[in-house]
Amino acid sequence: MVVEFYYHPQSPPCCLVWMVIKELDIPHKAILVDMMKMEHREDAYKKINPKMQLPAVRDGDLTLTESRAIAVYLSAKYGKGKKNENLYPKDLTEQARFNELMMADVDNYHKMLNYLNPEAIFDGRAKGVVTELLPKCEAVLAEYEAVVKSQDYMFGNHLTFLDFACVHTLGCIEMGGFDDWTKYPNLKRWSAKLRKLPYYEECVKKPTESNNRDFQQFLKEGSAMYTKDAKP
Amino acid sequence: MVVEFYYHPQSPPCCLVWMVIKELDIPHKAILVDMMKMEHREDAYKKINPKMQLPAVRDGDLTLTESRAIAVYLSAKYGKGKKNENLYPKDLTEQARFNELMMADVDNYHKMLNYLNPEAIFDGRAKGVVTELLPKCEAVLAEYEAVVKSQDYMFGNHLTFLDFACVHTLGCIEMGGFDDWTKYPNLKRWSAKLRKLPYYEECVKKPTESNNRDFQQFLKEGSAMYTKDAKP
Repeated sequence: MVVEFYYHPQSPPCCLVWMVIKELDIPHKAILVDMMKMEHREDAYKKINPKMQLPAVRDGDLTLTESRAIAVYLSAKYGKGKKNENLYPKDLTEQARFNELMMADVDNYHKMLNYLNPEAIFDGRAKGVVTELLPKCEAVLAEYEAVVKSQDYMFGNHLTFLDFACVHTLGCIEMGGFDDWTKYPNLKRWSAKLRKLPYYEECVKKPTESNNRDFQQFLKEGSAMYTKDAKP
Repeated sequence: MVVEFYYHPQSPPCCLVWMVIKELDIPHKAILVDMMKMEHREDAYKKINPKMQLPAVRDGDLTLTESRAIAVYLSAKYGKGKKNENLYPKDLTEQARFNELMMADVDNYHKMLNYLNPEAIFDGRAKGVVTELLPKCEAVLAEYEAVVKSQDYMFGNHLTFLDFACVHTLGCIEMGGFDDWTKYPNLKRWSAKLRKLPYYEECVKKPTESNNRDFQQFLKEGSAMYTKDAKP
């Protein structure tokens, strides 16, 4: 019996889980749910996740959604004895410090989303990104830049799945057109390390490029990209 | 040595932690940081939490911020042997299911915030709540209503800190003026159970009433409530 992983490569929460699976070399069956064809809204997937969101993971009788909950579970269950067995820390105090940063990253991700404004653009309430919120996103970059100034990774000097979460939070900002990382030399150094992961190309680079291209198109065409019934 | 708890009663994340402390009867020293007087931006508090956000908890050498990370830590460390020792579940699979609901609740809380729109109102980018988003908030109510239809609490049939988080997520919607709970009989039943907690009045009722009153005033006066330097 292997872990079933329902995903789409262009979904950042899916990519977070995907990286955990790859890093821990978890035996799994990857099941593509094509969001672009609205397969996540079809009955077959609704039976897996009634909320119709990706990703989902099935491990025996347990079906889990919510990427960070999945990442904690998979890291704790399948990390033992692996090279990076602390992809999620085991010690209570370390877990607390990790959870703190993980929850802060969720907030930061929402700051990025507030700037990118996809929902309001789709609903026709706005025509583009909220440029006034770009400074708040840059403050997020500065926050992460400070974190990796004195350490190799987002949680100390070893890889954790917080790095996987942060790479997507930070990548978000490029969807709005941002591409000047000169003020963030330590983030560039951190990013260069992640780029060496054997699954980086598949789980980060390709999806990010596709998302940036699609979002620029979305900005031009807005809700016309979708029919009303096929709301994403 | 007791746990130091830096809080303000009108901050929902503080109230979540406060309820955990009360429920587990954790020896603590509550230290009021008066947000209304901008004390969270003063140097004294900046030394505790450089991000200048509430709550924060100090337990020996460990300083923690982010309410849910604090709640997990306190429940795990101080729950043992208490009546509600599973305020955060201990078993890996149960934790995974709990974490899934906790992360979904964070998303739901952001849906409420998107509707209430406080940041844009303060920044002068909007004049009121985003009425178009009320249906999404009502969908959140329907989701939670379905959860407590077949069980007593948000996570099965015993109290967990998910109930404390949800009571604030759900309470949010009233800040925008919503007050018709007739379509949600099971939420009313769940809420009635929470109201019996000896700390409900202090940790939920009073803060919620104050917040509703303040938000209505905020809607009327917008950013004029604050000077530019004293941005909350």
